[in-house]
Amino acid sequence: MEIKNIKNKAEREIPEYIEGYGEVKPYAGPFATEPTGRKYAPLKSFSRPGDSKILSSIKEAVEKCEIKDGMTISFHHHLRNGDYVLNMVIDEIAKLGIKNLNLVCSSLTKAHEPLIEHIRNGVVTGINTSGLRGEIAKEISKNNILGRPVVFRTHGGRARAIEAGELKIDVAFIAAPACDRMGNMNGTEGKSAFGAMGYPMVDAQYAEKVVAITDNLMPFPLKKISIPMTQTDYVVEVESIGDPEQIATGATRITKNPQELLIAEKASEVLTASGYIKNGFSFQAGSGGASLAVCKYLKEYMNENNIKGSFAAGGITATMVELLEEGYFEALLDTQSFDSAAAESMIKNPTHIEMSASMYANPYNKGCSAHQLDVMILSATEIDVNYNINSLTGSTGIIMGALGGAPDTAAGAKLTVVVAPTMRKRIPIVTDRVTTVVTPGETVDVLVTERGICVNPKRTELIEILTAAGIPLKTIEELKEEVEKLTGVPEKFSTSDTVVAVVEYRDGTVIDVVRQAK
Amino acid sequence: MEIKNIKNKAEREIPEYIEGYGEVKPYAGPFATEPTGRKYAPLKSFSRPGDSKILSSIKEAVEKCEIKDGMTISFHHHLRNGDYVLNMVIDEIAKLGIKNLNLVCSSLTKAHEPLIEHIRNGVVTGINTSGLRGEIAKEISKNNILGRPVVFRTHGGRARAIEAGELKIDVAFIAAPACDRMGNMNGTEGKSAFGAMGYPMVDAQYAEKVVAITDNLMPFPLKKISIPMTQTDYVVEVESIGDPEQIATGATRITKNPQELLIAEKASEVLTASGYIKNGFSFQAGSGGASLAVCKYLKEYMNENNIKGSFAAGGITATMVELLEEGYFEALLDTQSFDSAAAESMIKNPTHIEMSASMYANPYNKGCSAHQLDVMILSATEIDVNYNINSLTGSTGIIMGALGGAPDTAAGAKLTVVVAPTMRKRIPIVTDRVTTVVTPGETVDVLVTERGICVNPKRTELIEILTAAGIPLKTIEELKEEVEKLTGVPEKFSTSDTVVAVVEYRDGTVIDVVRQAK
Repeated sequence: MEIKNIKNKAEREIPEYIEGYGEVKPYAGPFATEPTGRKYAPLKSFSRPGDSKILSSIKEAVEKCEIKDGMTISFHHHLRNGDYVLNMVIDEIAKLGIKNLNLVCSSLTKAHEPLIEHIRNGVVTGINTSGLRGEIAKEISKNNILGRPVVFRTHGGRARAIEAGELKIDVAFIAAPACDRMGNMNGTEGKSAFGAMGYPMVDAQYAEKVVAITDNLMPFPLKKISIPMTQTDYVVEVESIGDPEQIATGATRITKNPQELLIAEKASEVLTASGYIKNGFSFQAGSGGASLAVCKYLKEYMNENNIKGSFAAGGITATMVELLEEGYFEALLDTQSFDSAAAESMIKNPTHIEMSASMYANPYNKGCSAHQLDVMILSATEIDVNYNINSLTGSTGIIMGALGGAPDTAAGAKLTVVVAPTMRKRIPIVTDRVTTVVTPGETVDVLVTERGICVNPKRTELIEILTAAGIPLKTIEELKEEVEKLTGVPEKFSTSDTVVAVVEYRDGTVIDVVRQAK
Repeated sequence: MEIKNIKNKAEREIPEYIEGYGEVKPYAGPFATEPTGRKYAPLKSFSRPGDSKILSSIKEAVEKCEIKDGMTISFHHHLRNGDYVLNMVIDEIAKLGIKNLNLVCSSLTKAHEPLIEHIRNGVVTGINTSGLRGEIAKEISKNNILGRPVVFRTHGGRARAIEAGELKIDVAFIAAPACDRMGNMNGTEGKSAFGAMGYPMVDAQYAEKVVAITDNLMPFPLKKISIPMTQTDYVVEVESIGDPEQIATGATRITKNPQELLIAEKASEVLTASGYIKNGFSFQAGSGGASLAVCKYLKEYMNENNIKGSFAAGGITATMVELLEEGYFEALLDTQSFDSAAAESMIKNPTHIEMSASMYANPYNKGCSAHQLDVMILSATEIDVNYNINSLTGSTGIIMGALGGAPDTAAGAKLTVVVAPTMRKRIPIVTDRVTTVVTPGETVDVLVTERGICVNPKRTELIEILTAAGIPLKTIEELKEEVEKLTGVPEKFSTSDTVVAVVEYRDGTVIDVVRQAK
């Protein structure tokens, strides 16, 4: 049977059926696909007085949970590059001879490269994640070692898919920096504290079985409870769940790069001219140097003009904590803490509020933080003349990034500003057509680069306001031409027809696919 | 068709089918009935940026929620005798001509007597509650004005029934002392602060629609969030949701009655001799003067012996807060705050932890506070020679009390002690057979009265320990005889066959019924 392609609302040709994924619901616009029906119903459970949840090892947990070939197990990446839990668990599962696992990860990092062997050996044959980088990503992109498409979801989309029962988790393994004998957990106490526990808060609610893995077994009851004992089946104590020093690597520091600072400064000019920066405004800046640097300039402006924001959200960093503690914002809404300062702040600042990934960004509940945003700052690997953003694949077609919460917050924010240099290593960022659409152009308003500022033509009123404020604008086509004069037009890479990754939009429709790089 | 009676494990004859209730699952023992299958699946929902949840009136909320004849709506009683919300809502519904509502209340109080008219007019034809007192209770017990049995559930049983989909709530109305425009709520801030929000935390998760009714609309985002915006559909601002001065009435003060103090003192002797009062022990005392007075003596003992408990749970009162603040316990687990001191403590003491009714006492999740208790102190209206407790009906068969969390905590605690006088108004408390079984005798260990202490014969080791400690014990039959010599044996009241109330055990089986008093 021939499989037809369909063109979705992001102008992407997608097979209507993808082997190893299934029927494709094409992306139809940021709020075009409404849900029907009911959420997934978790199992009823049972507890007796005197029950003990403590198990002696991960192996025992795998056995008690009756993990079998073909099951779906979940992990979270709050420990980022320092996570030990995923590898420890999969190693034990592999030793028991179990195959064909489907992983539901909130994201995968460099720490998880041992997965490559488990994929090659058939232990892992399915991956759901928000991001994929390094060697695993290369092996999948080039050599299709998984043999089945990775499914990429946004942070909100993952929460939605779990709640909808599209992702049915058999066993959730949760790295718990603090845990009591009944499985009350938090992420803020102990030697491996990482802060907010936004992702597994969803897993714990819907998984058939929940295993807390902790290196800090505390007296019952835990005082701060992020995931309650009502959801936890077993508790395993291990020596270490990870190295929290490895959390704040990569994209979570404010840049010192002069070009990025220039971009950030221009972006903050756009923000202030836009009219959105006023008392009570809300704000989120994604990870990425320039994105975080915007906060620095924003703070100066807020200080000079005596402006106090309502909340900042994210992905919370030391920069955001500073803004909270110095009174620039009333509150932080945090689903994942990006550094130790953020993790510590959750303990000491009662206005630093932990939220689940569902409360952060799931479009299919009764309200989420992402939809309450005034201003969102994003970074991008590529942006095209339709303002579509790619943050997942390189210009060679190799997977090397993540969706994160960008599509969620871009859809929600009143003003979405992309900050990016016009080129990286002489590869232009502005293209005719991004390699992969992650965040659709209709949810992106402004591009700020070191060579100029472009506004999405659909935002006519914003063009007027910025022009009136004396901010010089270019069309994105003009900017592209200008850059290409310097860099040349990069050659297109070629791919096979094999789909190695499906990119779901937050509502579960397919916005793009990644094909195997040649 | 003739309806047969069946005898349940509490030796009660119950019809196998009850009109207006349905098939009866007979009570089979405290942990004999295990659940099967899945929890109830709430509706998927949808939110867009810019959505407003604010409605101008309760009437508008009733209309937006499309409340129709026959629907089930829920309320909570944290404002106890001071609650305005239930009456305001039912009045509006009645005005709109809607009939035949099924109410799911966490409890009903004196504040809700206007319900009588709504019952008479057919607006309300179903009641689910934990307690019922005063005029409504009399009208139902004597005159069967509802025409259909009231269903009594424990606090844990209510949470279980909602989670199981046995109680499907169409619309939950939640009295919110603090609420933001997106429906994040807490119970601790504002002029009507009542403290923990344990009951509606469950309703909000499972109801088709959730309406927050607040007299304190605060800026978004609320800093302390007990019920998140992900669960709230609408927000209605009213002048006042209730009178918090009316919370701490009735059974929530420490007694000054010398007889009750004597009972409390004896009870604390039992506790200390029992061996359960040691470092790390956990404790709950129900409402009721003698019950709370036990805390006073317990504190002295803990002080003298340098003992620190882990947690105290409840129903939290000023007495418990004092024990926390003075370091006698590490934490409070609170599902309902019984006075303003408790409500204030939730703000200032981070170790005063709010929990949902499900985390408090639901037997069908993966762990609950009730099952972690060492010692539980209960009061009782009647106790029989099999240690069954009645806290619901008077010796005339009239409903005048509540189940509360007593059956839940008695089942969970290692040591359950009933404190009660031997007679009230010359009516003996110890009987051959309690009017209504609320808490089954197999979960009750000790009865302490002013005339003597009795231990459930099944607790042979406890009898040995207490005897060795020099505590004089009587059999409960001896105590009963002794009291009856003073009071005489009260005449049995008679009832018709009509069942006016069904008493569910926490697991949804039927432990007893209340028949219409003649």
